[in-house]
Amino acid sequence: MHRRDFTRSLLAVALVPRVAPRASRAAPRVNGTRLNAHLAELSAFGRNPQGGVSRVAYSEADRQGREYVTRLMRDAGLDVRVDAAANIFGRRAGRDPSLRPILIGSHVDSVPEGGNYDGDVGSLGAIEVAQTLAESRTTLRHPLDVVIWSNEEGGLYGSRAALGELQPRELALTSNSGKTVGDGIRFLGGNPDDLASARIAKGAYAAYVELHIEQGGTLDREHVDIGVVEGIVGIDQWEVTVEGFANHAGTTPMDQRRDALLAAARFVEAVNRVVRSVPGRQVGTVGRMQAFPGAPNVIPGKVVLSLELRDLDAAKIRALYTRIHDEADAIARDADVTFTFRPTVENVPAPTDPRVRAIIADAAKALGLSTRSLPSGAGHDAQDLARIAPTGMIFIPSVGGISHAPKEFSRPKDVENGANVLLETVLRIDAL
Amino acid sequence: MHRRDFTRSLLAVALVPRVAPRASRAAPRVNGTRLNAHLAELSAFGRNPQGGVSRVAYSEADRQGREYVTRLMRDAGLDVRVDAAANIFGRRAGRDPSLRPILIGSHVDSVPEGGNYDGDVGSLGAIEVAQTLAESRTTLRHPLDVVIWSNEEGGLYGSRAALGELQPRELALTSNSGKTVGDGIRFLGGNPDDLASARIAKGAYAAYVELHIEQGGTLDREHVDIGVVEGIVGIDQWEVTVEGFANHAGTTPMDQRRDALLAAARFVEAVNRVVRSVPGRQVGTVGRMQAFPGAPNVIPGKVVLSLELRDLDAAKIRALYTRIHDEADAIARDADVTFTFRPTVENVPAPTDPRVRAIIADAAKALGLSTRSLPSGAGHDAQDLARIAPTGMIFIPSVGGISHAPKEFSRPKDVENGANVLLETVLRIDAL
Repeated sequence: MHRRDFTRSLLAVALVPRVAPRASRAAPRVNGTRLNAHLAELSAFGRNPQGGVSRVAYSEADRQGREYVTRLMRDAGLDVRVDAAANIFGRRAGRDPSLRPILIGSHVDSVPEGGNYDGDVGSLGAIEVAQTLAESRTTLRHPLDVVIWSNEEGGLYGSRAALGELQPRELALTSNSGKTVGDGIRFLGGNPDDLASARIAKGAYAAYVELHIEQGGTLDREHVDIGVVEGIVGIDQWEVTVEGFANHAGTTPMDQRRDALLAAARFVEAVNRVVRSVPGRQVGTVGRMQAFPGAPNVIPGKVVLSLELRDLDAAKIRALYTRIHDEADAIARDADVTFTFRPTVENVPAPTDPRVRAIIADAAKALGLSTRSLPSGAGHDAQDLARIAPTGMIFIPSVGGISHAPKEFSRPKDVENGANVLLETVLRIDAL
Repeated sequence: MHRRDFTRSLLAVALVPRVAPRASRAAPRVNGTRLNAHLAELSAFGRNPQGGVSRVAYSEADRQGREYVTRLMRDAGLDVRVDAAANIFGRRAGRDPSLRPILIGSHVDSVPEGGNYDGDVGSLGAIEVAQTLAESRTTLRHPLDVVIWSNEEGGLYGSRAALGELQPRELALTSNSGKTVGDGIRFLGGNPDDLASARIAKGAYAAYVELHIEQGGTLDREHVDIGVVEGIVGIDQWEVTVEGFANHAGTTPMDQRRDALLAAARFVEAVNRVVRSVPGRQVGTVGRMQAFPGAPNVIPGKVVLSLELRDLDAAKIRALYTRIHDEADAIARDADVTFTFRPTVENVPAPTDPRVRAIIADAAKALGLSTRSLPSGAGHDAQDLARIAPTGMIFIPSVGGISHAPKEFSRPKDVENGANVLLETVLRIDAL
């Protein structure tokens, strides 16, 4: 099915009452006990003393974790291959060879001192869907591909390679594993010299659906079962340098100082004030700050800090940035310092496909689960896939909203619910 | 002369009109050209590309600089020895063997990327005084000791050893030279195993007078020739830890954050506000700040920063600290974070001796120089000596108040003036 066909048929779903798709009648359901057991087993690779994992991409723990999920993929009857970017793909054949495959999956690498759910739930959930289809002898019309993206946490390396946007110079960067990205890709069985072969053409997939923990606390706080992701927020980052004049902290009177840290402190407050001054779910963060020369007895002459703004609406990010920049100008005049902004990251917002969102919501309701729409404040491989395929994301609650930390936790029932929604979503897309 | 005798005779000076002391009649004057040439020669040792020096204590440059001044001391007819703490002493004998010596001097080590005047002016000025006395065949009643204190910039190591307060555990600390303090002392010809022998008994010296650049901009701004130092301010430092909760910068709404850096920013502003809220010359500085984990996309869970307060009045420092602590408590409640204060440095204020101050002021006036009283915001070996001898400090202007930087500069005429005031002060103390 071409993209245009897919659109037409999805619109038809929305507009025309239809008989329930075949999948709902058959109603296969995942094995929640097995899925949660797999989560526990995967957590052994790179386990850290705090009970989470440090399974950073390209590490030995990452390699072992990938070996483990590869085994599960083969057990689920998938035909497994590793592409040049070290993404793992496992195919389940469909009935109609003219149809494009449906893609589901996530990643199994973690941040340093990460938890056992981020990426893992979506990866093992996708494999569980394939296993359930195999056990229930359900053959889809479309082929189904399960994907484990490589190095998500380091910067969406695997999915950016799928877009053809991984830059050759990035291969020389040192990753958290200590290896360069190039060496890391090779370590995992990829081929950094042939990244072009990892590229996925726009329209090659009928849809991409990723299951993931929320990483925020909204679903948990509101006791909602399933989040239907409206999109992945845009993320803009700047490195901000404040320059004043370093001087002796004992001999320079208070009214003679050009204190870069005092100016930076006012800036941090201004960022918070501006971001909170308008309604909405935008966030703004100063996460890194260092004063130079950094001695207790020297007035800081320079401060380097990070500024990050996120929202689903790129225009809102721009408007906030303009106001923050104006505040910096005012502080600079008042404190006799300078502010320099250097853009470092610009990820445009990636809205999910409204038709896939509707299917996810319907699938959840059919399973008796409550839903709400929400943006993803975190980045995901889905933001890359959204540019080449109709994309959707399913969130499950994350207790307390804890993320990228050993205490990250999602309840077994929520993990099972999420995988069932993923399964039902695949069945409904397949039936269109 | 015992301390009590010294006090009595100085008071007599203040109260009773006397004939001008012999020294004023003889009126020897330093050779300013030679003194400034020595400053230029000393600056060769450890010269850095920016035109200053990096002659950190215990480095090869420090050793060479000390060799150079030792040669000058010998040329001035001084009898040179190095004590166990690597302080260099050069003695010029006096006429009356029953009188205690007068001590003058400073240091020749620098901060990393320092300038050519801090310490050097007082060291070479003291040697110039001895040389001038030798050339003018002036024999004082008191013996005269010229001292070059070791490792002033690293933390007054030489003068603290003279107090008997250098702790054995400090010998194991790594200095800016890369060597431990113990190895550094040995490298300079001292003996860290025999530090007790470097101790100077209270009352052993009739007086200690140190010439130094101001390091602040007051004299330069007000076009005053000579600063009469009221005392060396007390310096209290704390390491302040702010703890909130690290979380994902994309998924944690603004109103759900416990942002340690936002709280720290408010604290920096509060320190500035509190310190400036009362009249006086007190200063308060946050010179070091680092956010953890320190990633642009993580809300800081912890910030470590330094707080430093300086004033001549210990009670004022305590009062400011109490108010700052109260502000921290309020921020902690508001931002749901905690503040912990750990004292790291406590140097009590060291007032100079009022009688020595009066002599310095009179000496400057006799030379036709303008004077003003001011505190030293910077620490000096004089603050240690003030506890065992009547102590005074003479400041000369520092252009723009630049200090601890290659651009540090004092005009040759001011250097000469300072040395002449030191000479005249020594003569007047000697004549009491």
